[in-house]
Amino acid sequence: MAPETTIPGYDYGSEEIARSPVSSDELELLKQTVLFGPEDADALRLAGEVLSDQVEDVLDVWYGFVASHPHLVRYFADAEGQPIDEYLDRVRARFGQWIHDLCGRDWDQAWLDYQEEIALRHTAAKKNSTDSAAGAPAEIPLRYMVAFIYPITATVREFLARRGHSEAEVEAMHQAWFKAVTLSVVLWARPYAEGRW
Amino acid sequence: MAPETTIPGYDYGSEEIARSPVSSDELELLKQTVLFGPEDADALRLAGEVLSDQVEDVLDVWYGFVASHPHLVRYFADAEGQPIDEYLDRVRARFGQWIHDLCGRDWDQAWLDYQEEIALRHTAAKKNSTDSAAGAPAEIPLRYMVAFIYPITATVREFLARRGHSEAEVEAMHQAWFKAVTLSVVLWARPYAEGRW
Repeated sequence: MAPETTIPGYDYGSEEIARSPVSSDELELLKQTVLFGPEDADALRLAGEVLSDQVEDVLDVWYGFVASHPHLVRYFADAEGQPIDEYLDRVRARFGQWIHDLCGRDWDQAWLDYQEEIALRHTAAKKNSTDSAAGAPAEIPLRYMVAFIYPITATVREFLARRGHSEAEVEAMHQAWFKAVTLSVVLWARPYAEGRW
Repeated sequence: MAPETTIPGYDYGSEEIARSPVSSDELELLKQTVLFGPEDADALRLAGEVLSDQVEDVLDVWYGFVASHPHLVRYFADAEGQPIDEYLDRVRARFGQWIHDLCGRDWDQAWLDYQEEIALRHTAAKKNSTDSAAGAPAEIPLRYMVAFIYPITATVREFLARRGHSEAEVEAMHQAWFKAVTLSVVLWARPYAEGRW
């Protein structure tokens, strides 16, 4: 899955981004905790293929959800409460690439490092600077990071079912996706808790 | 759902426990974020009825999962790494009651307060003192609190399907359960992040 270098702020594999303090051993224990095994890795790869040409449709659903909830869209709005279109667009492009990366990348050190970078981009450390979004809230509260596990998981199932796979295949892809999203949010929660993570 | 007063350390509704700093307005926004609506409330009540006489079986699955993973059972072990049976038993009884409460209680101030108490009992503030579990690790790391959303959600589906309900009813119960578990973990994450929650 080659990086799409035209995505603003998409720095996967760059020397400029954060290094993850999470070790590969710690990642392995987290995979065990969400019951992520080799069959899930295969199912997630397949999910990535199934979703690859539907990413914009998935993003339409997610952005529609955020846009229709003032308590969510405010994190992408300026000090007057006006959504910042350029900020939303830049984040959207990376959010789409995240789908490709989560399903298609190996979960190696570069992947761990980029999860740390994504984590920091939700916090005061890096949230607005990446997209020059001055005036937007400095941080997305942890509560919404964790709560998003539900909508990001549930909304994807219909897209997984649209390419003619059996019910068992769709279910396997969806469970792998659920595990992978949960694991991602675990990694993105790290800066909020530091030594208590 | 009357409290089972024989459960050690089960202090639901007590004046002795923590007060939640989470407001009912904040809870409402979290419910919106996990898409929890009135139909989910109904489905969750039904799930509580379906699970009510299967709680010990559910706990067998969950405890089997923890017991088979050294990186998890260690939080219930003494300084020598030996699991503390009395501690595990006391937590188990409250874990079972949590299933009843999550499905059967109104999510009012008393419920919110008890979520805060449960949250603190995973942290250094209250983890071992409730059960006199001296020598056990002082805190369960946030990573495993969030990661547990997956196993606690996925393992329940088979139990929801065991009482003759239609596939649509089982699915509705399971989605409501997933939302409710995610929301619970959101509330339990609060002390780890405090002002960043």
